[in-house]
Amino acid sequence: MDAAAHWQRYQDWLYYHEGLEFYLDISRMGFDDAFVSQMQPKFEKAFADMEALENGAIANPDENRMVGHYWLRNPEIAPRDELKQEILENIERIENFARKIHGGEIHPPKASKFTDVLSIGIGGSALGPQFVSEALSPDFPPMNLHFIDNTDPAGIDSLLARIRDRLSTTLVLVISKSGGTPDTRNGAIEVQKAFEANGLDFSGHAVAITGHESALEKQALSEGWVATFPMHDWVGGRTSAMSAVGLVPAALQGIDIHALLAGAKAMDEATRRWALKENPAALLALSWHYAGNGRGEKDMVILPYKDSLLLFSRYLQQLVMESLGKEKDLDGNTVYQGIAVYGNKGSTDQHAYVQQLREGVPNFFATFIEVLEERRGASPEVEPGVTTGDYLFGFLYGTREALYENQRDSITLTVPQVDARTVGALIALYDRAVGFYASLVNINAYHQPGVEAGKKAAAQVLQLQKQVVEILQKSGQPLSLEELAVRAGVGDRVEMIYKIVRHLDANGRAVKIEGNPRTPSSLHISAR
Amino acid sequence: MDAAAHWQRYQDWLYYHEGLEFYLDISRMGFDDAFVSQMQPKFEKAFADMEALENGAIANPDENRMVGHYWLRNPEIAPRDELKQEILENIERIENFARKIHGGEIHPPKASKFTDVLSIGIGGSALGPQFVSEALSPDFPPMNLHFIDNTDPAGIDSLLARIRDRLSTTLVLVISKSGGTPDTRNGAIEVQKAFEANGLDFSGHAVAITGHESALEKQALSEGWVATFPMHDWVGGRTSAMSAVGLVPAALQGIDIHALLAGAKAMDEATRRWALKENPAALLALSWHYAGNGRGEKDMVILPYKDSLLLFSRYLQQLVMESLGKEKDLDGNTVYQGIAVYGNKGSTDQHAYVQQLREGVPNFFATFIEVLEERRGASPEVEPGVTTGDYLFGFLYGTREALYENQRDSITLTVPQVDARTVGALIALYDRAVGFYASLVNINAYHQPGVEAGKKAAAQVLQLQKQVVEILQKSGQPLSLEELAVRAGVGDRVEMIYKIVRHLDANGRAVKIEGNPRTPSSLHISAR
Repeated sequence: MDAAAHWQRYQDWLYYHEGLEFYLDISRMGFDDAFVSQMQPKFEKAFADMEALENGAIANPDENRMVGHYWLRNPEIAPRDELKQEILENIERIENFARKIHGGEIHPPKASKFTDVLSIGIGGSALGPQFVSEALSPDFPPMNLHFIDNTDPAGIDSLLARIRDRLSTTLVLVISKSGGTPDTRNGAIEVQKAFEANGLDFSGHAVAITGHESALEKQALSEGWVATFPMHDWVGGRTSAMSAVGLVPAALQGIDIHALLAGAKAMDEATRRWALKENPAALLALSWHYAGNGRGEKDMVILPYKDSLLLFSRYLQQLVMESLGKEKDLDGNTVYQGIAVYGNKGSTDQHAYVQQLREGVPNFFATFIEVLEERRGASPEVEPGVTTGDYLFGFLYGTREALYENQRDSITLTVPQVDARTVGALIALYDRAVGFYASLVNINAYHQPGVEAGKKAAAQVLQLQKQVVEILQKSGQPLSLEELAVRAGVGDRVEMIYKIVRHLDANGRAVKIEGNPRTPSSLHISAR
Repeated sequence: MDAAAHWQRYQDWLYYHEGLEFYLDISRMGFDDAFVSQMQPKFEKAFADMEALENGAIANPDENRMVGHYWLRNPEIAPRDELKQEILENIERIENFARKIHGGEIHPPKASKFTDVLSIGIGGSALGPQFVSEALSPDFPPMNLHFIDNTDPAGIDSLLARIRDRLSTTLVLVISKSGGTPDTRNGAIEVQKAFEANGLDFSGHAVAITGHESALEKQALSEGWVATFPMHDWVGGRTSAMSAVGLVPAALQGIDIHALLAGAKAMDEATRRWALKENPAALLALSWHYAGNGRGEKDMVILPYKDSLLLFSRYLQQLVMESLGKEKDLDGNTVYQGIAVYGNKGSTDQHAYVQQLREGVPNFFATFIEVLEERRGASPEVEPGVTTGDYLFGFLYGTREALYENQRDSITLTVPQVDARTVGALIALYDRAVGFYASLVNINAYHQPGVEAGKKAAAQVLQLQKQVVEILQKSGQPLSLEELAVRAGVGDRVEMIYKIVRHLDANGRAVKIEGNPRTPSSLHISAR
């Protein structure tokens, strides 16, 4: 393609949203008109699917649930009036709550003000709030936000050590729809114990964000926690950033949640249009489909050139891979779908893996994110007429051009600045693009059967661990791994038995191993 | 394969290092004996290449440099006596320096002690120190460590705002081999200006870690900076964690650098053996080659089940992708090599992208990292007989098993705990595995031509920006983008001209745009 044709293609495909001052450029994806024509009917179906979903159709057939996260930023379109009222009241409650916490009207039992927020949640109950916080937290937020997003005892210890002097003024958010997610429940139990060990009344510090009538809600009500906020069954974890899950921590940090919602609402409206070229989410889905032949053959590399957007790739990793990474399509065919997502930030990554992007295995397409505003205020010159931000700009477009010259495709998003409105718009844009893409490849984007299966597999391991301990305690003598497996009724799982006893022994618990670790078959296991 | 055969395969391939209490299990990679036999001669060559490299052969032919990072942790094997002496002296200097800083013997011009460290560097000069810091920093380190690892003005502002009250007690490390890396130079200039704006003498706070006779070294010496430490031309950026680049920030944070070096040395010794099954780095390289057919056809997903190892995947992203992501092999053939790397931590990621790993597109192999020690000290029970760490353990092995059942291969590393010795060993293990893999596929693992090309492309963009501003200032009237491009002598680069003026206009600099942003051809550009 010659330069004039390039420039024409750039202009032909340029999407611009006036209200959001947002640009999307897919001209450097190598599709042609024939591809677009061929995709057109699929997009008609995707637009129709999305409209039905927004109107309250059951869009998550496995779980027989509506998918309603779009209503959160525009309650007017909620399919029932009581839903609309509930959404509006919740936003107001969250704002009032944050105001009272900041003002000291709600305060810890033994102090006049809360200073810190400790958020306990995993998956969608962590990644959205983490991304929003990293992107938007003021330099001096009204409260410091910390996360427990794992069931790692050492990680919990380390965090509690670092905030120990402020534990008496820490507000704890426990975020779990069912209350039964073990990682979150474990974190909450450990934090509760830490409060008790410090003579503090946990219930005077704790807030539950949870489903209606969940075990966690019941606990919070019976113990008199500071507050509870709802998680709706029509909002999935990975699209919950605009529900209480995301809004409560954001409001406590002093982030403008109305601007966040308004940005998302504006993008939702833009991505509701039944015209491919006028719909930025459709343009993204088109590009993804082209890049990977609708089968995820290319990884999606996310390169925001702005420090504060560092966690966007991790947020998208969850959104895209959990939504699209499916074995079966909606007709039950085995399809092994998905798109792998990774990335951190530019230009930093140019000194890391961009070497491979430029020259190595061409198994990806890049998404550049440009932020027009260098910084608040003027920049000093680092050379005559050149600023630090000029370099950032130059690296972005230098890299984009070099990738293109080497037949590596890329998408470029341009936003005016990183503020709540823009972040809300980015979240909404990718939400919708994932929904469209799922329609194009005919999968359910709103369930996660593999996550449930993972929980079950772990529960089986823990069950086996209990059995092993019991067997060893009853046995008067050391047993080999093989003997232990047979007695536990799992003669075919010697390796797992070995892992279990190694784990227990290493932590000085219940079990003792003797012998040469190099030859597991020779080991003798006994109760400690 | 039946269960007994599995257990036999597990034991046959289990690698155990007694001193490091380190296990490597590649039994769940699906290779067979024929594959191993076929790879054997390639490994003989890889072992020979590595021996030559350690003995001081020119292993980076493009840059005519020796590759000597192995000498850093075992100076005895350095090929010349003065190198050995220099390495030993440097370690001693670093320790003495940290001791004097901690004790206040070296102190800021206007205070009795340094409290914070601000490290300015990018790529290898950031990722190693960041990973080591995240993994090993004490809960209450003697100094707080901060990073500027980008040329993002807003990121620099945000960091400087957060440490503004402690700027007068902040020690600044400027890390750049040439001193000419623009990202690092820009960061240093902006930080220097911030010191001056606060009436502080930058030279009394600054430390250079740089190459001999670099521009940065000259500046540091002429301005009388606090100290300078060397970067050797025989240590590449991405393998510099055990040089002054990694050791200075580690020592300042109170990390045991001797244990770090000792762990790496022990692993180096283990990975020097000319026997595939007794060499854990060779076993890794074998597995990688099997997974991706020696062409990077599968992504490497890194899943440490431990919060403190979160950044290991990012560290490996650089190490693996920058080392292996190459267009040409050593014979000049076009090969487009590399292996894509991503990951964060378990079990957190099980609530994110592991859905896709389990069920979706099978374009990856996983590497699980198990840490045997749950935490320092005993764990409370979260259920009868069950701890938070049991869940972490159960999630790891539940997921490993589920992946295997779905024909997804995985490697499992097991380490006793996360301490300096283990982290040193992990760094050394992957260093060496990358070196072996490069031999297997016949590429130079020690250069990064694409990074240099990226810098040049950016410089061209900045040059064009200067031209554009000059043309507009000379022109008495507004110009269209096309006219501007022609006058700048780049009639074929209208799109780049457009990006440049949009960038300048958005920041209120030099250039003004009028017209409809939706149709770039209609815009009029003038000097501001």
